[in-house]
Amino acid sequence: MTDQGCLNLRWALALFDGLVEGGMRHLVLSPGSRSTPLVLAAQRQPALTVTPILDERSAAFFALGVARASGRPVGLVCTSGSALAHWFPAVIEASESGIPLVLLSADRPPELRGWGANQTIDQTRFFGVHVRAFHDPGTPEDSPGAVKLMRALGRRAAVESQGDWPGPVHLNLPFREPLVPGPDCRIEAAPIQTESAVSDTMGTRRPARPAGWGLPQTPPRSDWMSARISHGSGRGVICCGPGDWTADGAEALWHLAMRLEVPVLCDPLSGLRFGCASEHRLTRYDSLLRHPATAAALKPDWVLRFGRAPVSKTLLGWLADVPTILVDAGRGWSDPNHDVRLKIDADPAAFCVWLADADPEPGTPDPDWFARWLQAERRLERFAAEYLDQAPWCEGHLIRDLIAQVPEGEGLLCANSMPIRQLDTWSGSRVRPLRVFGHRGASGIDGQTSTLAGLNAGGLPTTGLLGDLSFLHDLSGLPALRTLSRPCIVINNGGGRIFDYLPQHGLPGFETLWRTPVAVDLRALAGTFGLAHRSVSDRDGFRQALTESMQTDRPSGLIEVVIDADLSRQIHRDFWRAVSVRRDDA
Amino acid sequence: MTDQGCLNLRWALALFDGLVEGGMRHLVLSPGSRSTPLVLAAQRQPALTVTPILDERSAAFFALGVARASGRPVGLVCTSGSALAHWFPAVIEASESGIPLVLLSADRPPELRGWGANQTIDQTRFFGVHVRAFHDPGTPEDSPGAVKLMRALGRRAAVESQGDWPGPVHLNLPFREPLVPGPDCRIEAAPIQTESAVSDTMGTRRPARPAGWGLPQTPPRSDWMSARISHGSGRGVICCGPGDWTADGAEALWHLAMRLEVPVLCDPLSGLRFGCASEHRLTRYDSLLRHPATAAALKPDWVLRFGRAPVSKTLLGWLADVPTILVDAGRGWSDPNHDVRLKIDADPAAFCVWLADADPEPGTPDPDWFARWLQAERRLERFAAEYLDQAPWCEGHLIRDLIAQVPEGEGLLCANSMPIRQLDTWSGSRVRPLRVFGHRGASGIDGQTSTLAGLNAGGLPTTGLLGDLSFLHDLSGLPALRTLSRPCIVINNGGGRIFDYLPQHGLPGFETLWRTPVAVDLRALAGTFGLAHRSVSDRDGFRQALTESMQTDRPSGLIEVVIDADLSRQIHRDFWRAVSVRRDDA
Repeated sequence: MTDQGCLNLRWALALFDGLVEGGMRHLVLSPGSRSTPLVLAAQRQPALTVTPILDERSAAFFALGVARASGRPVGLVCTSGSALAHWFPAVIEASESGIPLVLLSADRPPELRGWGANQTIDQTRFFGVHVRAFHDPGTPEDSPGAVKLMRALGRRAAVESQGDWPGPVHLNLPFREPLVPGPDCRIEAAPIQTESAVSDTMGTRRPARPAGWGLPQTPPRSDWMSARISHGSGRGVICCGPGDWTADGAEALWHLAMRLEVPVLCDPLSGLRFGCASEHRLTRYDSLLRHPATAAALKPDWVLRFGRAPVSKTLLGWLADVPTILVDAGRGWSDPNHDVRLKIDADPAAFCVWLADADPEPGTPDPDWFARWLQAERRLERFAAEYLDQAPWCEGHLIRDLIAQVPEGEGLLCANSMPIRQLDTWSGSRVRPLRVFGHRGASGIDGQTSTLAGLNAGGLPTTGLLGDLSFLHDLSGLPALRTLSRPCIVINNGGGRIFDYLPQHGLPGFETLWRTPVAVDLRALAGTFGLAHRSVSDRDGFRQALTESMQTDRPSGLIEVVIDADLSRQIHRDFWRAVSVRRDDA
Repeated sequence: MTDQGCLNLRWALALFDGLVEGGMRHLVLSPGSRSTPLVLAAQRQPALTVTPILDERSAAFFALGVARASGRPVGLVCTSGSALAHWFPAVIEASESGIPLVLLSADRPPELRGWGANQTIDQTRFFGVHVRAFHDPGTPEDSPGAVKLMRALGRRAAVESQGDWPGPVHLNLPFREPLVPGPDCRIEAAPIQTESAVSDTMGTRRPARPAGWGLPQTPPRSDWMSARISHGSGRGVICCGPGDWTADGAEALWHLAMRLEVPVLCDPLSGLRFGCASEHRLTRYDSLLRHPATAAALKPDWVLRFGRAPVSKTLLGWLADVPTILVDAGRGWSDPNHDVRLKIDADPAAFCVWLADADPEPGTPDPDWFARWLQAERRLERFAAEYLDQAPWCEGHLIRDLIAQVPEGEGLLCANSMPIRQLDTWSGSRVRPLRVFGHRGASGIDGQTSTLAGLNAGGLPTTGLLGDLSFLHDLSGLPALRTLSRPCIVINNGGGRIFDYLPQHGLPGFETLWRTPVAVDLRALAGTFGLAHRSVSDRDGFRQALTESMQTDRPSGLIEVVIDADLSRQIHRDFWRAVSVRRDDA
């Protein structure tokens, strides 16, 4: 009879064979005993890179970064008990953002569950509605069919994580002791089909579906859509929220915008602000629409939306009550204003190709519509540049320099709260590609340093732009920053400064209960974790630190940017006020 | 019409009035915007101490500590989105250990849920089976009935968290904007019944129920129980796992043990090892039962078990197949060996009183049964002392000194993996009370520094005994250690040394994938968070550091104990080997 440890190992090996066939190349594991068969199997799977990370929370956010950078499903392994609960924040972000993770939690066998055994909790359907699928194949059994099942389950989980609605998939895997195989355990190596048909369609960054995929054979030109887009006033806008456009997809989008003669309002996380584009790409709307007359004059009759809701609250508020067509291949229904009249389940790129080819007759469009947008954008762009040129140094200058300096094709991870909003305001665009990432699924301030490390480990050199609270929320990620060749920029402005812009500002107890500064010396903290530390507080200092930290052969470490938050708030307020009272707009 | 912000505040005030009436005195909150009405209300509730902690995971483990030290339900507040997912590990521990927490998650209103709004996820029944109750009262409404409802809901949640089966209760609380009340908002102060009937029964540490509570009117002397305990061989043992005995309860237990003439095997987390007791209290079983002849000679005919499964694997294995009576007032069914023949739903103390009074006729007990136990225990105790006296310094000496030095009535938090097992082996007992805490619900290595801070904040000066991995898993708790007047002792032995004692030891990749040492200089880390740091590596150093850190007027900080793990493993192995081959036992 085969010993139990050997059975466990064969079982786990078959699972990883299937996962690799389904496209997995990276596994992140946290230490534990019950998960031993999974670890032993992962060690023996040559196609897998294995990263051990102590804190499961950090491990999961790291995996999320690897998955985003590589476009492949990433595996997570942890032991039984509360360990998998630490994955939950990253699982939520992955679910909301559509990022493929395969969660492999070890468990005690059924005879111990619910009987007060050590490190045993109810792990069944643990992540509830926040995973795409849950599987519990039971304990390892000694039969060829059982091994075949595990291999098939691996393939299936990897594919499920990358479906129309990508996201996390949870496999709960009970193992009986002994967990380590005996000396007589023999393992037959099964040929791994990394180049199989399955992985061919899976191994690339979120694959663009064939044009027309998911679209009805007869185009969805409902009367309403037809009337609006083809025969309407022509005063429409395309709004692209956080999403993930391929180069080909973007090409199709620009072509469609040109065809419809409408502007494309590009969220900083749309994947469209940076890289080659047409003049239809607009990025200054958050500032522009603070000018009441412009906002009124440019109000559209319809909006075609892609991706999640935009970061800009100004834009979202301005779009309220505008009839909306939403295009989304997944099950997202991003419509916080409740204005969607038509939801089209289609790959955005395929939809753009189809709509442009469908030859919508422009009817009697307003011939000046796009020209007015373009003129307003250009004026605002000049105004913003002039404003920054005379203003004291603030995040606006930093972001302008950062966008200019990040090397072509690299990544930028931007944290929530202030950084993403300031990036929205000041980034502008550039021709050289740049991939911007942010946790915009659940918009938490969590997991940033771990995700930054994961993005870099996933093969994309990525710079981080974080606030001090985001940085300190994820201390467990600091050891993983040690080897990065791109810096983590921390804007240290003494706590959660987003609250300075909200009605809570100035309430009694504001400092302690909302802004919550954490008094930690970032230089000392960096030193503790073996990270280089550069502190800057002006333009030259920042430019130099950025250049140095990118060129050095040594790991990049932190750039601490000391910002006077009150001054910064004043600069931003003054800018928006100046925009709102300008006379030459619209 | 009342403005929405004012409505939100009144609603939240009523909720906190109810929670305070139900016994809550402490609230831990993490910053956020959507949770603003809750924060505003908490500020206005004079009976509540409010602690802000940035990282929700740390906040929840801190709350767990406060709840354990104070015996009261503790509230947690966070904003919407992934924030509440960070609570999950502590929620699991609270659920498994029966600790009252009230989870107050702010949420977006229903019209935004599922519509792609910012920071919005499905928070409904988020904690699944891991909470005792879930409530979603909907959004604040403007009616006296609605305010009454919220006050009642507060009372109810507090009571539910402290029921027969104490644990976490989740309230999901949606708020519409504006979140801050307008200037005309008037608040009528409702008298708070902190001394009401409700709080009278709730405000004390886990109240001992009236004797007989939960017991059937006719005592549960089934034939089997009667045959075993009253008319059987008399060779029984009482085994007390992790639990929470009051002084009165312990008194009843010792009385019962004397009446039955059986030993009481006391887990380090039973609450029974320290404080006044009879000679029936035994603590050396983990070592004792490694001697095969003794283990065989002392094998009982029945065991009466209280609390969760004991920490000692040796004990648990030895108890396998021994018919068991389990007494538990809650819904726990702690029986990993599947030997429970009779489960009695009763308060342990009340059961002891009842059984001792029930005058079970001892039948024909083995007159030497308890005497043999006592003799074996005393011999082992002497042997252990002699062994330590000649052995190189190790955790055994440290624990002996620690137990001797911790002031009367104070607390000791012992982390999982090695520390709790070594405490089990070496603690012995003492007459002066000492409350020992450990996360033995899910037995994770998580949340230790935060719980340590919470125990101290809950009013009980508590010393921590942690391993390096546990310490580093909860870095977010370090800022909260800053004010402690008791030290956090960190045994730094270079990673997860428990694996050295398991079959995984010596596997290829063992160091990286199981033991996972984290190369962080603890002195630098302590300095970064403003904690004093003392490094010791011998007996005198440890004793002195412990004395100093307890006497100083300044916060105590860390005591880093540098241990040679290989030497320590050798010492422990040699000890158990010496025990197992002794000739004079049994």
